[in-house]
Amino acid sequence: MYVLIVYDVEVARVTKVHKLLKRHLHWVQNSVFEGELTESQIETVKAGLKRLLSEPDSVLIYSARDARWLTRESLGRERGAIGNLL
Amino acid sequence: MYVLIVYDVEVARVTKVHKLLKRHLHWVQNSVFEGELTESQIETVKAGLKRLLSEPDSVLIYSARDARWLTRESLGRERGAIGNLL
Repeated sequence: MYVLIVYDVEVARVTKVHKLLKRHLHWVQNSVFEGELTESQIETVKAGLKRLLSEPDSVLIYSARDARWLTRESLGRERGAIGNLL
Repeated sequence: MYVLIVYDVEVARVTKVHKLLKRHLHWVQNSVFEGELTESQIETVKAGLKRLLSEPDSVLIYSARDARWLTRESLGRERGAIGNLL
């Protein structure tokens, strides 16, 4: 699955969430990570996130079965260093 | 097209970017909007963003031809109030 994760968490947990996601995905913007994960890896990431998150944190996980179904375009400065999806 | 926009812009431009995106898309998290747009509407949004953005702002625009290709899951608090994609 091609996965895109966007988080909005309290400052106290930003570093922990960032580190967890960095172990599995590519960083593309301030609080956005993306990459190819198996279903099992997605479950690992979700379990890790659930352990870390607390109110009023919010994490959105978008997934597409195939990266080709998703196009990414960037305006302004490129933060992360991964190539285009297509 | 089903569009997902994530922005990371300087505080001075946050309100303007938020207002522009709100005219066309649904707000789903702090700096994340999504929704169905025609190609022409996407061009309008991109033109508006390009007028507003300045260094070191970054905006990522993800698009899928069909919303069914994209699944969204939420952990923690739900910010926006739109339904599931599927």
